[in-house]
Amino acid sequence: MNRQIPLPVNFTEKFAVFNDQWAPKIIAQMNDYQFKLVRLQGEFVWHEHTDTDETFIVLEGSLVIDFKEGSVTLNAGEMVVVPKGCLHRPRADTEAKLLLVEPVGVVNTGDTQSALTAPLDDWL
Amino acid sequence: MNRQIPLPVNFTEKFAVFNDQWAPKIIAQMNDYQFKLVRLQGEFVWHEHTDTDETFIVLEGSLVIDFKEGSVTLNAGEMVVVPKGCLHRPRADTEAKLLLVEPVGVVNTGDTQSALTAPLDDWL
Repeated sequence: MNRQIPLPVNFTEKFAVFNDQWAPKIIAQMNDYQFKLVRLQGEFVWHEHTDTDETFIVLEGSLVIDFKEGSVTLNAGEMVVVPKGCLHRPRADTEAKLLLVEPVGVVNTGDTQSALTAPLDDWL
Repeated sequence: MNRQIPLPVNFTEKFAVFNDQWAPKIIAQMNDYQFKLVRLQGEFVWHEHTDTDETFIVLEGSLVIDFKEGSVTLNAGEMVVVPKGCLHRPRADTEAKLLLVEPVGVVNTGDTQSALTAPLDDWL
């Protein structure tokens, strides 16, 4: 068998092929976890993920995540892990570009049904 | 209970407090996966991880990963997932700064014992 060499993924090239916001695109999978690129602007819905932590890595722009107890601001070159069961609301005044890491099958709006609920299997 | 707000991690600030190479520092944990910053320069050992995939995200500089079938070059803003059981050797002519993602307990040299084998629980 001629095993293939793993292919690198370039974030800029991937962002160039989509413009929709709040719609995470899967770019890679490690075991049962996926890496997703997403464009965020405006205010998301309050939600939580009861079964899993969720990782936000900011590649461009700034992101605010509101919690019941206060807010954090993330700039490019920063990341945060939101613990499972922790109610939160991402928002961004201007568009932020992020890399998300989460288990396969995580719904972007968690336990909250919303018009912003995105499809689960959107590979780029 | 007054739940704490999750704290953002700034990559530049974390890199500022260590200079050793090939010594991954844990900066965050998501479920049973960890995020590690590492400085790489020179040639690592050939190794494989029989039980898990491994993710390399280049933050600064360039990294080459050699495989038996060929090599890939990763620049800043690029990532690759090396599948489990895939023999590989990272190397970098000049220092590269990376973010690694892998399960808790992964040894950096995999199945290969080496002077470069790093401690498992080096939180920053």
